[in-house]
Order: sequence, then structure tokens, then C-alpha cells
Amino acid sequence: MTITGNQISSMEQRYRTTLVNSVSGFKSLQMVGTISTDGITNLALFNSIFHVGANPPLLGMVVRPDGAEHDTLKNIIATGQYTLNNVLPAWYAKAHQTSARFPSGESEFGECGFTKSYIAGLKAPFVKESTIKIGLVLRDIIDVSINNTSIVIGEIIYIILDENVIAADGYVDLEKAGSVTVAGLDSYHTTQRLGRLNYAKPGKHPEALSV
Amino acid sequence: MTITGNQISSMEQRYRTTLVNSVSGFKSLQMVGTISTDGITNLALFNSIFHVGANPPLLGMVVRPDGAEHDTLKNIIATGQYTLNNVLPAWYAKAHQTSARFPSGESEFGECGFTKSYIAGLKAPFVKESTIKIGLVLRDIIDVSINNTSIVIGEIIYIILDENVIAADGYVDLEKAGSVTVAGLDSYHTTQRLGRLNYAKPGKHPEALSV
Repeated sequence: MTITGNQISSMEQRYRTTLVNSVSGFKSLQMVGTISTDGITNLALFNSIFHVGANPPLLGMVVRPDGAEHDTLKNIIATGQYTLNNVLPAWYAKAHQTSARFPSGESEFGECGFTKSYIAGLKAPFVKESTIKIGLVLRDIIDVSINNTSIVIGEIIYIILDENVIAADGYVDLEKAGSVTVAGLDSYHTTQRLGRLNYAKPGKHPEALSV
Repeated sequence: MTITGNQISSMEQRYRTTLVNSVSGFKSLQMVGTISTDGITNLALFNSIFHVGANPPLLGMVVRPDGAEHDTLKNIIATGQYTLNNVLPAWYAKAHQTSARFPSGESEFGECGFTKSYIAGLKAPFVKESTIKIGLVLRDIIDVSINNTSIVIGEIIYIILDENVIAADGYVDLEKAGSVTVAGLDSYHTTQRLGRLNYAKPGKHPEALSV
């Protein structure tokens, strides 16, 4: 079947949100940890993380001004720091719960049962239960004028993980780390590797890499 | 182990690229179809697709000015149109091959063995073999000055899929459609659903939704 832009415009709002959020493929799932200038921690679930560049190491994410992520953006602007923390299969429902609209004064860490962890050099809290933790400093906030959202771009200044999840060539084995992926706003998935392939060149068939 | 920003800066370039591309989680994988004003089609693999908003339905992607995606960006600017096409397990290696740097005059459709398909109302080619096809018009190109990349934002004007992959609430079942996800630049994965969860509310445990 073919769905047109006009049909999408006239859909019931929740149906449209669910459709558009799920149609573009599996997404990076991260809990974003921040702290306010008053010392109140915040933890929020994001599925719009994307790679911007490796040198300097930059990640982007989309933030809605009116969403549950409001405190996250405010804290990132105030402190210039945030963390990304992966989600594991054993507690994906607890991670989902951080997307509820808790009052500003209540920390999702306590409400949802996660443990804060800190390192010297970063005020923003990590999630102790995560197996891949990334610490970032804010580098840019870009306004997307079409729909009044913001793209937050941060530079990675810390990566915390078990050394056995990094392969000899720098590849982070997300399956070994137990990372969950997300489809749409609410569907959580584990993965099964088909294969890693070597660098593609014209006229050559890709070959499998050992992980 | 803890890896610092300074250590990332001093890494060998390919090691750093592999590490930073894979650390942030599983990503949306799409083949981007475009056509030049001379009628030469292009197909390129992207792993930086992200959701920008549902109303209007907007998707973003990061394009490097010097990368193999150069022709893609040029064609999008010239025609204002492009398509996203999902990748299936049976031919993920062929999809990977579209990331090789073919000369500008050669179409990856023919070189890599994909079939062009068109609909009235869009000049950009779809990949016939894909089970979820999205047609977009260019809405904005945002320069990321930190590292000289561009964020292309498009509005969805067509979605082509089998109606049995859409649930009653608008959820697109990517597993039923066979969509592959990617980790880093070269690791391809199928998925296994843990569960869909209902809308999170403070003080309530998330409950499973039927798909």
C-alpha cells in the first residue's frame, strides 16, 4: 500500500506519531543523565541519538522544547554536560519508565530504581547499571525552525566500558555489552549479528570480518 | 576501563572512526536513492537517519561533504527529492557494497544488483527489493560548523509497504518487514523483540502491549 503525505497529515495524532516514529528503522537507545545547578539529577530516555563525526568525536540528539525532555535540555544548557547510558534486556521496562513525566523536583534515578555513579571531571551522573557509559560536553545547540525542535551536539570526553567489549580494531561489540535497540517509541529489541563486512571497494565482493 | 577525550584524539584514525561509530548504539540503516538532473541514479548506504518530528513527518540524516555520499547530497539539492529503503538480511552484503566509492557516472543500482522502481509524483528511485520505502522532499539543510558536515532534513510524502506490517495503532513492525539494523560502519544485525510497553506514567509499572 502507498500512504501519502496528505494522508499522514489527516491521521489521528497518536496514530501518526506511532507510524512516523517507527517507520524509519531501529534506533539508538540511550538514557541521558543530567544534573541541575541545584544538584537535582535527571534521567530521560532518548531514541534520536546519531553519529555526527569521529574527529572530534561528536554525537547529536533531537530535543523537543515541550516534551518530557524539557529538564534534560535545561540542565545541559546550565551545566554544559550530560551522559549517555545504554539499556540492557533485564531492565528495559525500568528504562521505559524514565520517559514518564515526573515532576521537575523528582529524580528518575530514585523513582525508577537506577543507581547514580560519578567520575572526577564530570558533574553529570552516569547510570551504574549500564555497561557502556559516555560522558559528553555540550558543543552546539542547533534550532530546527521547521518544527521548533533543537539538535544538541556534544563531544565525547569519557567512554566507560569493560575492555572485553572492544575488539582489536576499535569496534564496540554492542551485543556483548547487551545493548537494546528500539523501534518507534515503545518497542524494545535484542539483536543477532548477521556479520561484519570489510571496507567496500568497487568490483570486490564484501568479505566477512571476524568480530 | 575509562577512555578519555585526549586518548580518543590521539588514536590511530581508523581505530577512532570504528570506535566512535559503534559506541553510541544500534542505528537506523537505510539505502538513500537519488537521481541527478542528467538522469543518473545513485544509491548510498546511511546509518545516521533520525526522527525529527511527526507533524509534519520529518527525518534527518548527516552527510559528509567529502564522503562517498557526495553525489547523494548534490542530487538532493538539485532535485529536492530522495528515498529511504530498508535493508533485508538476504542481501545485506549487497547493500554494504553500495558504500564503495563508485565513479560518479556509474549507478550503484546496476553495480550492486538492485532494481529501480518509481511512482508517479517522485523522480527519485526506490529500491524494489526493499519492503519499506519512504519518499521525501527536502525541507532544510543545516550546516554543522564544528566539523563541516550537513544535516539534511526531509519531509515524508510517501510510505510504501505491505499493509500487514502496520499494526492497528500505526506501529510499523520492522521485524515483520525484515529490517536490518547496523552497529558502527560494518556490523549488521537482525532483531528479536523483548516487548512493546504502554505509555509510561509516574507511579505505574509499564505493561506489555500486544504488537
